[in-house]
Amino acid sequence: MTEATPIESTDAIGNSPASPQSLPWAARTRGLVGSIIDSSTSLLQRQTHDIVSFAMGSPAAEAVPFDAFRQIYDSVLADAGAAAYAYGATEGEVALRDELLAYLESTPERTSAERLLITSGGMQGLDLAGKVFIDPGDLVIVEAPTYTNGSATLLTYGADIMEAPTDDDGLMVEALPELVQKAGRLPKAIYVIPNFQNPTGTAMSLERRLLLLALAKEWGSIIIDDDPYGMLRFDGGHIPGFRELGGGDPLVFSVRTFSKILAPGLRVGWVDADPSIVAKLIDAKQTMDTCTNVPNQLLSAEFLRRGNLEPHLVRLRSEYHTRMSAMQTSLEAHFSGRATWTNPEGGFFLWLTFGEHVDTSKLFDLGLQKGVAFIPGRAFSVTGQFGNALRLCFASQTPERTELGISRLAEALDAL
Amino acid sequence: MTEATPIESTDAIGNSPASPQSLPWAARTRGLVGSIIDSSTSLLQRQTHDIVSFAMGSPAAEAVPFDAFRQIYDSVLADAGAAAYAYGATEGEVALRDELLAYLESTPERTSAERLLITSGGMQGLDLAGKVFIDPGDLVIVEAPTYTNGSATLLTYGADIMEAPTDDDGLMVEALPELVQKAGRLPKAIYVIPNFQNPTGTAMSLERRLLLLALAKEWGSIIIDDDPYGMLRFDGGHIPGFRELGGGDPLVFSVRTFSKILAPGLRVGWVDADPSIVAKLIDAKQTMDTCTNVPNQLLSAEFLRRGNLEPHLVRLRSEYHTRMSAMQTSLEAHFSGRATWTNPEGGFFLWLTFGEHVDTSKLFDLGLQKGVAFIPGRAFSVTGQFGNALRLCFASQTPERTELGISRLAEALDAL
Repeated sequence: MTEATPIESTDAIGNSPASPQSLPWAARTRGLVGSIIDSSTSLLQRQTHDIVSFAMGSPAAEAVPFDAFRQIYDSVLADAGAAAYAYGATEGEVALRDELLAYLESTPERTSAERLLITSGGMQGLDLAGKVFIDPGDLVIVEAPTYTNGSATLLTYGADIMEAPTDDDGLMVEALPELVQKAGRLPKAIYVIPNFQNPTGTAMSLERRLLLLALAKEWGSIIIDDDPYGMLRFDGGHIPGFRELGGGDPLVFSVRTFSKILAPGLRVGWVDADPSIVAKLIDAKQTMDTCTNVPNQLLSAEFLRRGNLEPHLVRLRSEYHTRMSAMQTSLEAHFSGRATWTNPEGGFFLWLTFGEHVDTSKLFDLGLQKGVAFIPGRAFSVTGQFGNALRLCFASQTPERTELGISRLAEALDAL
Repeated sequence: MTEATPIESTDAIGNSPASPQSLPWAARTRGLVGSIIDSSTSLLQRQTHDIVSFAMGSPAAEAVPFDAFRQIYDSVLADAGAAAYAYGATEGEVALRDELLAYLESTPERTSAERLLITSGGMQGLDLAGKVFIDPGDLVIVEAPTYTNGSATLLTYGADIMEAPTDDDGLMVEALPELVQKAGRLPKAIYVIPNFQNPTGTAMSLERRLLLLALAKEWGSIIIDDDPYGMLRFDGGHIPGFRELGGGDPLVFSVRTFSKILAPGLRVGWVDADPSIVAKLIDAKQTMDTCTNVPNQLLSAEFLRRGNLEPHLVRLRSEYHTRMSAMQTSLEAHFSGRATWTNPEGGFFLWLTFGEHVDTSKLFDLGLQKGVAFIPGRAFSVTGQFGNALRLCFASQTPERTELGISRLAEALDAL
């Protein structure tokens, strides 16, 4: 059967089917909109000419430890047998939990078993935060710009999203009290990406982290601490994270993932939260997907057990540093005086801002024609801000391809 | 670090952490309760003496095509390379979608690409139904008894669950109009497991299926058609399903999974629904886990491409028939005159009912002592009905182990 074959109606009742418009959608479904980030990527995949893509937030294909995975997988199957395909524990496989705890022990994010839940990627961590904390109408503060796929998850629980400004030191936390006063109510949660933020690449300063923790305590607000990139710092000094600064503060809900440091197709991440929260998360996850897929948990566990993660991270940091520096060089060559951009110390992304007259949604179309892709700035704001900015992923292209892509972007801007 | 190591407070703010009790939970979180099914299973895993377990709803370990998976996996990785670990499409990998469509073409559930969404197991299909259709306070009719992990998912969206009676022909659909009249409002959805129901093992009759379709149309209610076991019929004739009877009726929302016919650890299932619904499901799934894990999708696709599924199902049906018959023989030998039980024509489960005076929660404890496990009946009702019944999974034990387990169950009943 081809994809185009229509379904014949074999309706045994004899009534004509109800029209889709009449379906009894939940109220939240009306607010569900597709991700512009994902649809831009999808549009890109349909192009047939050569395109240098700075659009996706994916690790470079060559950054995935594929050969190690292939070797490890067979030994994992030999060891686990059919149990590799049985139902797993909702809180995650013991092998992965143990190895992850041991690895984190050597990092500033050391934690304990009762604080840990294995999730189906970082997105499920955000979905769990929404499920257990967000009631319809709850105020949630997000960074502007932010990762709108994350804020969309909170929207499905009826969150009332309020954007707060950012600068080169991340979320302008000192502006929050006035915003909250104007809103006339306290935020239930504050959603932040503190390290190498998506999309800006900037990191929140220590002073602001401390202030945000103090405000969260004063307000009783959950800090949804989404940090997929924190282990990818390639320059500058470590800034303690919310998990580290807050100790065991139950208001800090930390979402982590292997997607950016190992591979996104695994769909394996974790949440680090207060044990009283984790108990509720286990109940909630049972109603979402029962457990995270087992073989990829065992694969990740064995990768960790063999001590492969740290040297892998060292290689990634070095490679991404090289790639980011190459992009800075190309940007200076082609955009000096025509745009400003951030200078990240880690992660995947940088953020380019033009003068007010440049519409990056129009530039996107011209860029595709010239053979370069990015994500337009509006995709990162629920209120459609940042129409003159764009996100570039520097992590996925070699320096040579980056120079080619940035020169094409300059041609596209010339043609605008 | 051992699991018992406490976290030291490194709170940089100096305040004492908020107590967990003061956390700003969402209203729905108060209704989240752990699954009795899962906690019974967990209790079981902590026992150290020999136990014949009829508790889990898992395929027998020997029913997982492990050797085929191991062979196939390496060839999948050789073909796909690092793409096997990249982000996948939210609607599912093309390879799996194509192979699944081709396989379903040979079954009564043939469908088309625009109706298909790959999910992270059947549970995510139920979670998606709740997300797009259930508003707080919506009435949802479920079978009594039912798979309460499924109804728990709908509860997280605020569903008001109403139980409806069942008999040997499944949900007593003819009783619904009076129940709905008493409720004073129409159901938003009706959640049913039409084939070899969990926990009873019975199948809904054709007449009742047709009547339910007619009532759903009259009421504008979604039929959440959860059918993990339909391909495991080992006796009796095919009864057309809601997908087949309803044609393309948008009110029929069909949840399917590889968990029972291949392996649950894959976490790969699918939803078959109206294209207008699938479009919303893709948006919703982006906010839940971005995409289903990629390698297990590719593994399942290759298993299908090699034509392995149908012969595998033939073997499973034969083996499960043998095991169900063995359980019937053992039950007749040990429980004749002491209990009644169902006689399933497929699936995993049968349902045993004692006189009113028998409390199967107490029997559970005695059973563990004697070396046999099951799930007490109360686990299958949100109102705590069926205290004198229990669920037995016949699929997971050999005839010899089944005889041993059922004889131990009789001893436990003697000791009650």
